[in-house]
Amino acid sequence: MAPLSSWLQVDPKSHFSIHNIPFGVISTAEESKPHVAVAIGDHALDLHVFAQENGFSALSIIQPHQHVFSEPTLNAFAQLGRAMHRVVREYLQSVLLKDGPFKNVLQENQQLQQAALVPLEKCKMHLPMFTNDYTDFYAGLNHAYNVGVLFRGPENALQPNYKHLPVGYHGRASSVVVSGTSIKRPNGQILADPQKKEPMFSPSKKLDIELELGCFVCKPSSLGDPVRIEDAPEHLFGIVLMNDWSARDIQAWEYVPLGPFNSKNWATTISPWVVLMDALEPFTAKGITNDTQVLPYLDEKDRKSHYSIDLSVSLTTSSGTASSIGKTSSRNLLFSFPQMLAHHTIGGCPFNVGDLLGSGTISGESKNEKGCLLEQTDNGKTEIALEGGEKRKFLEDGDQVTITGCCGTEDGGLVGFGECTGKIEPAVSMSF
Amino acid sequence: MAPLSSWLQVDPKSHFSIHNIPFGVISTAEESKPHVAVAIGDHALDLHVFAQENGFSALSIIQPHQHVFSEPTLNAFAQLGRAMHRVVREYLQSVLLKDGPFKNVLQENQQLQQAALVPLEKCKMHLPMFTNDYTDFYAGLNHAYNVGVLFRGPENALQPNYKHLPVGYHGRASSVVVSGTSIKRPNGQILADPQKKEPMFSPSKKLDIELELGCFVCKPSSLGDPVRIEDAPEHLFGIVLMNDWSARDIQAWEYVPLGPFNSKNWATTISPWVVLMDALEPFTAKGITNDTQVLPYLDEKDRKSHYSIDLSVSLTTSSGTASSIGKTSSRNLLFSFPQMLAHHTIGGCPFNVGDLLGSGTISGESKNEKGCLLEQTDNGKTEIALEGGEKRKFLEDGDQVTITGCCGTEDGGLVGFGECTGKIEPAVSMSF
Ligand SMILES: [Ca+2]
Ligand SMILES: [Ca+2]
Ligand SMILES: [Mg+2]
Ligand SMILES: [Mg+2]
Ligand code: NI
Repeated sequence: MAPLSSWLQVDPKSHFSIHNIPFGVISTAEESKPHVAVAIGDHALDLHVFAQENGFSALSIIQPHQHVFSEPTLNAFAQLGRAMHRVVREYLQSVLLKDGPFKNVLQENQQLQQAALVPLEKCKMHLPMFTNDYTDFYAGLNHAYNVGVLFRGPENALQPNYKHLPVGYHGRASSVVVSGTSIKRPNGQILADPQKKEPMFSPSKKLDIELELGCFVCKPSSLGDPVRIEDAPEHLFGIVLMNDWSARDIQAWEYVPLGPFNSKNWATTISPWVVLMDALEPFTAKGITNDTQVLPYLDEKDRKSHYSIDLSVSLTTSSGTASSIGKTSSRNLLFSFPQMLAHHTIGGCPFNVGDLLGSGTISGESKNEKGCLLEQTDNGKTEIALEGGEKRKFLEDGDQVTITGCCGTEDGGLVGFGECTGKIEPAVSMSF
Repeated sequence: MAPLSSWLQVDPKSHFSIHNIPFGVISTAEESKPHVAVAIGDHALDLHVFAQENGFSALSIIQPHQHVFSEPTLNAFAQLGRAMHRVVREYLQSVLLKDGPFKNVLQENQQLQQAALVPLEKCKMHLPMFTNDYTDFYAGLNHAYNVGVLFRGPENALQPNYKHLPVGYHGRASSVVVSGTSIKRPNGQILADPQKKEPMFSPSKKLDIELELGCFVCKPSSLGDPVRIEDAPEHLFGIVLMNDWSARDIQAWEYVPLGPFNSKNWATTISPWVVLMDALEPFTAKGITNDTQVLPYLDEKDRKSHYSIDLSVSLTTSSGTASSIGKTSSRNLLFSFPQMLAHHTIGGCPFNVGDLLGSGTISGESKNEKGCLLEQTDNGKTEIALEGGEKRKFLEDGDQVTITGCCGTEDGGLVGFGECTGKIEPAVSMSF
């Protein structure tokens, strides 16, 4: 497909080309109640205003549902289903297309441009969806292997179940926050001496990131009603970047036998713009080949259910110096989101619209492709060198971590995720 | 306190004496939209109708908030806070009290009695609260010890962290269902031969119960904002019975290293009537003494934060024969709900009104006091004998499990929870 081009000026480096059209929730000086928008270049197209001012006049199918654009989350829009997402996204592309079929709607309507196109820097971004249940998987094979080697050695690095099912745990939905939210270092129980099993109360000293993708569900499923692997794609709304902040020392002490808990539930940051599954369709790819034959309920046959998203992580210290601390591709996953959903529901677990699936930490095979500091520093045994001479084993107060992710090329029009960022603040000081 | 008595006839065996006044969500023939009620004897007092018909005329403080009784969950009422719960509950007790101060409100108002008092058997019960996040703890020391012995032997039965913190995991909020909901046996991956780590797809063959208490939160707390142990009681709304249905074979295969997942997320049943913390106040007790000194953030000093609730579990097979399969007391917990909340929030995890804490399986020390079949049958190595000659290792299709729980005496007026029940249906039949 030849690249599309918009009458609106879009920098070729922008993640939000006309090929993308990601959905998010904004508030503005004019409308302080959170509502729905799409991103195009360095603007948001405010769909609450656009709908009110008759911007959807040429798309009759959406007209009975236009209230969804005035909602404070994307849930109502998501619930309309993938066919409707496709139609709305393509209509908006047509409206933005240079000399497209609906020129009169926006290209030739200065007044509506004035009202509905808001520079991104004037938009406050909100959590895009209300999430009732958040699940974090562990499908990054290289990450799971590297962490397994650290704690159990290379012989037993992967547990026997690892390639048979997407291992995961239930996360804390209330702790999912939007990019830009400040992140307080958690207090908790840690061991001063790992040999002596006597905990002390302390701010975490092993604060880490986890580079992940998140995927939102758009179609509910009932108690006792499994989602078949072939139907799973219709249940998926779109993808965001995710940083599953983790306190490794709290985790090491608490996690037996029921898994991570306070080490993970104090913040998970997601990027604000949801890139729809349709926008990612040109970038589908195979993930890591599973050398174990999975059971039929997980068998996708030859379907390409992963995406070629170039991911990178940077760390900016309180001195203001930024360093790249990792780059990898989202193809480094053993299980896909459809497989995660099929597995999650196979016993009858119900889903609501807005539920969130995390991929698990994504690492490549090489040294510079590791999605967390635990792997990069061998659990604090070594240090990484930052630009400007600083070093890190784990995160320090004042560090800001930013994940970016993007598909495609500047020539073809980028389909990217923008940023997922958060800055570490000191722990709450508590006295007893 | 001398027992109170109502002008409404209440069987002394009723769990819902005038000393209780539990809150729930009902729908009726007259009002099919779920709304709020309290239980008294074998009636519900429909608070939507009661409020509409001016039943709260003598309680001016609630008047600006009466809409909470027309809501489909107790969340809005819960959010009013413990002081308001206390006032409303005591007012309703006064209204129901024989020759009490507000005789004219209901005792002498036949018309309102007719409209607002609904026999319980005519009420359809709904989930009492909307739960954004559900957490299941593991605070039943005897249970944790017994299970530890089964899997790791008596030497390492309890993990080193067990007495230092309330171990828990995030559960699946969407799978919390109200008593009476049918429970489909889950399908999933299980090992045919535990030695050969090769899973097969099958309905679970080790379907189990877990006898627990659930506690609802009524006061929100923000990201990064720990709830202090001394403030925690103000955050707790009330208690329900809980059956955390568990598939032991799915659990055994999936749970390393991130904890239970599909083994637990297909259903957790709770009783429909929430017994408020104030109603339980006369039955406070000490739990199991912790021989480990906990860190100050968990130290309740001498506060009695447990309750003397007599719990029992019965199993009715498809033949209709019921057998008692366990009795114990809720004092068999090492950590209290305030301790669970203080621990859960110590790293900054936020809470919403309606969030649910599960206690963990409650077992006593003796043979007949075990809160799950895993313990009772040594993971299926032995069988339990039921009335009428049947035997069980784990649950069979058609089995109905009912948990009951009650405080106090018939003379003093029972404060009970009614029933938490569910019946096992066959697994979904799937072909590929
Ligand atoms: Ca993670
Ligand atoms: Ca449990
Ligand atoms: Mg997290
Ligand atoms: Mg459960
Ligand atoms: Ni502009």
